[in-house]
Amino acid sequence: MQTRKALLRAAAEAFDEYGYAGASINMILKRAGLTTGALYFHFDSKEDLAHAVMNAQPELIVPQLQSQGLQRLVDITLLWSHMLQVDPLLRAAVRLTGEQASMGTRDATPYQSWAKVMAECLRDAQNANELQAGVDPDELGEFVTEACTGMQMFSAVASGRDDLSDRAIRMWRLLLPGVAVPAIVARTEVSHERLKTLIG
Amino acid sequence: MQTRKALLRAAAEAFDEYGYAGASINMILKRAGLTTGALYFHFDSKEDLAHAVMNAQPELIVPQLQSQGLQRLVDITLLWSHMLQVDPLLRAAVRLTGEQASMGTRDATPYQSWAKVMAECLRDAQNANELQAGVDPDELGEFVTEACTGMQMFSAVASGRDDLSDRAIRMWRLLLPGVAVPAIVARTEVSHERLKTLIG
Repeated sequence: MQTRKALLRAAAEAFDEYGYAGASINMILKRAGLTTGALYFHFDSKEDLAHAVMNAQPELIVPQLQSQGLQRLVDITLLWSHMLQVDPLLRAAVRLTGEQASMGTRDATPYQSWAKVMAECLRDAQNANELQAGVDPDELGEFVTEACTGMQMFSAVASGRDDLSDRAIRMWRLLLPGVAVPAIVARTEVSHERLKTLIG
Repeated sequence: MQTRKALLRAAAEAFDEYGYAGASINMILKRAGLTTGALYFHFDSKEDLAHAVMNAQPELIVPQLQSQGLQRLVDITLLWSHMLQVDPLLRAAVRLTGEQASMGTRDATPYQSWAKVMAECLRDAQNANELQAGVDPDELGEFVTEACTGMQMFSAVASGRDDLSDRAIRMWRLLLPGVAVPAIVARTEVSHERLKTLIG
């Protein structure tokens, strides 16, 4: 597992810096300090490695969180907005996911796995009577995934992602009143202070 | 102007099909049936041409619409979701905007011009008392731009953009109740039927 992790990290750093086409297998092996044999034991190809990087996203964020329901979903987006600024693996995953046209692949799994994680929080929220009637957890989970995808792209070119947490906070200010019951809108913590408690 | 338009269209078709790196100046000139001289009269470089394609977006959609206020903003997103499936210029603009990392550029103008057009609709909506108190037109305009950006990426890999209009309709179902006053939520038309009337 350590070798696999080292390969993923090295590949992510190379993809983050040079993109899919610009990153070579040799560059990745050099960074990881590993041989071709080690690579092909764990991954079939550069493309296979890219898909593994793309699909590593939720595990980087979700296990760190204690909260439940709607607050958990808010916390996922806040922590994600911070991690994207500091973690090359998450950044490479997001870059590759968005640049699939130039890789010649079409893999919806990275989006779908985020949407699924978010829908699980929202089903808990629904069971705890946090959501307004008629709000579908699966639909809202997909929509929040879409909005986060777009906000990091806008933020990347507008500010090098410096304002990404501001954008995540703004999303909830606009979205919560239409999807959560009033008591939950009032109680849910959506702020830079909340993010600070999550980073710890 | 006709030559400039022909160059933009030819460049868009090439960028849409091959991406920025894959599309060559020669390929673009061949498609347009024009000479190098004609190109450099209108554009400084392939990069200049790419920025012109990226920034052509709102003019492809907005002048076609008659509605006002919040309905106009909804109509922009509905017509955009359709045009992205059929218009190579819009499709190339969106692809290039999202792939700026591989072009080595950082141009927030395509996002900002969409956000500005949307904020104008929302200021009209605010003046007509369509918005809930505290909803900021500029903030909501940026957020809808972000959400549309992300939904077309998710839709591209999930369905080749076949479900993009469904996703635009879903966004408004989730977002409207939190930002518009109840009478406007009830009156605003957000449906495939509405989109059909816009296509004409």
